Amino acid sequence: MRFVGLRDGRRVVVGLVFGADGAGPQGGPMGTAGDERPRVARVADVDEFYGDLADWTAKARRMTAGEHDLADVELVPPVPAGARILGMGLNYHAHAAETGLELPRRPPIFGRWTASLTVDGTPVPVPPGERGLDWEGELAVIVGSRMTDVDEDAALRGVFGYAVFNDLSARRAQGASAQWTLGKNSDRSGPMGPVVTADEVGDPAAGLRLVTRVNGEVVQDGDTSDMIFSIGRILSFVSRTLTLNPGDILITGTPAGVGYIRKPPRYLGPGDVVEVWIERVGTIRNPVVDASARP
Amino acid sequence: MRFVGLRDGRRVVVGLVFGADGAGPQGGPMGTAGDERPRVARVADVDEFYGDLADWTAKARRMTAGEHDLADVELVPPVPAGARILGMGLNYHAHAAETGLELPRRPPIFGRWTASLTVDGTPVPVPPGERGLDWEGELAVIVGSRMTDVDEDAALRGVFGYAVFNDLSARRAQGASAQWTLGKNSDRSGPMGPVVTADEVGDPAAGLRLVTRVNGEVVQDGDTSDMIFSIGRILSFVSRTLTLNPGDILITGTPAGVGYIRKPPRYLGPGDVVEVWIERVGTIRNPVVDASARP
Repeated sequence: MRFVGLRDGRRVVVGLVFGADGAGPQGGPMGTAGDERPRVARVADVDEFYGDLADWTAKARRMTAGEHDLADVELVPPVPAGARILGMGLNYHAHAAETGLELPRRPPIFGRWTASLTVDGTPVPVPPGERGLDWEGELAVIVGSRMTDVDEDAALRGVFGYAVFNDLSARRAQGASAQWTLGKNSDRSGPMGPVVTADEVGDPAAGLRLVTRVNGEVVQDGDTSDMIFSIGRILSFVSRTLTLNPGDILITGTPAGVGYIRKPPRYLGPGDVVEVWIERVGTIRNPVVDASARP
Repeated sequence: MRFVGLRDGRRVVVGLVFGADGAGPQGGPMGTAGDERPRVARVADVDEFYGDLADWTAKARRMTAGEHDLADVELVPPVPAGARILGMGLNYHAHAAETGLELPRRPPIFGRWTASLTVDGTPVPVPPGERGLDWEGELAVIVGSRMTDVDEDAALRGVFGYAVFNDLSARRAQGASAQWTLGKNSDRSGPMGPVVTADEVGDPAAGLRLVTRVNGEVVQDGDTSDMIFSIGRILSFVSRTLTLNPGDILITGTPAGVGYIRKPPRYLGPGDVVEVWIERVGTIRNPVVDASARP
């Protein structure tokens, strides 16, 4: 199943996607062209949804058709406002190698807030003082159960689903101090795609291809089997210190090919379009605009 | 005025405090003993409250009495679930000196999530693998207006209020990588007090005394006039990269006297009680418990 968020006044409602662009309960192919327009069925308020995932996903599995055309609704990330977005630095061998930095001995975790998330298609502004934004195509992991001090296997079993993520980075702000947080939270800098349930994706350690394109040109072409710390290991590590809740998100780091490391460095500026595709998970595509588009 | 959060099922409602322990619209003294039990009046759902602060605070100012005894309600932080908690490292000259670290040239910002916040009185567990928790008494600043690329004066004028905060730190997790985030978000590690409106506090740069006590013994005795980066400067700096929203919080760093820097190091363990008092803002007091009390 594939879930999106629908804006409904101040509320966010989780919706189930049916049709050519989505995988309904029948698990249809994603991202393929089709005659039917994708439709969406309302499932539950986002906090209620993550408050009882087993019940709501069982209800969703029994749904047979959408009520709205996907094109007619305002999409937002299907994430509770209070969710934590845990970011991983340096988690692909090939990316660690290109930075020249030492391999981390323990997962380096930084924080993103839901206020900086957005969705496929939204224009992302370059903040003032930056030479541009840098791309970081990433696999996002959506936590599906409460995790306190869990082992790696339990952590992986507790994953609800996966989404495509672009961890767009404001490198000057990121490098202003040793803490990366600010440069990882510029306005609308975290586009994420629909949540695809884990049963349709399998274990990412077995390998999902991840490709990032800028204006159609491939700039990252990696595979999730290259991760230094597995998803189970990171979640287990985090759960020793803080209790993870359903709806919390782990973004798992980016493969090689980011812009700031290039000679000369390359950044996304107004007019560029950046796209991230992950095998079996989907595609997100976002135009970049200038700072005047900030909220 | 002094605002608290009240738990109402899944909702959080902002309440105005009246009476001996709170400052009502008449600005009564805080923290003094009195014959009357403090009372609280419901003002608005927390998201609505921060969605129109001018209107709700005007309504609150016209309220004359509370509906509930403060002792009868479940208190929670008066903060929207989607608020960002921006943490400042090394922001007091005396604390920077005791760490031996270089003075930062730009504000080092780390992230806390609202999921790790709690209130006065809640027991705070020590996560497994830690020698204890370290105290960091801090002044929290609650943002009152939308801030995009604002200057220092506008930022300070846009402050809604202040609260006492204890940035309880899990030092092993904090030091596991260069990113502090994990060690700053252990379960219930961010107790905060009621929000006191800015008109009752004045500019913290003029000096507010801040005292932290462990089991009654003074371990920090600082003054907010010792800050390296002013509140206006930090908010202005942050607003260049990300748009601050009403309800977002800045915790402004801690004065000298933290535990890990002592010889020998000193940490909070089960049975200890830690208290933070800030002049004109209030007091919070939290017992520390072992890891079995994690959620």
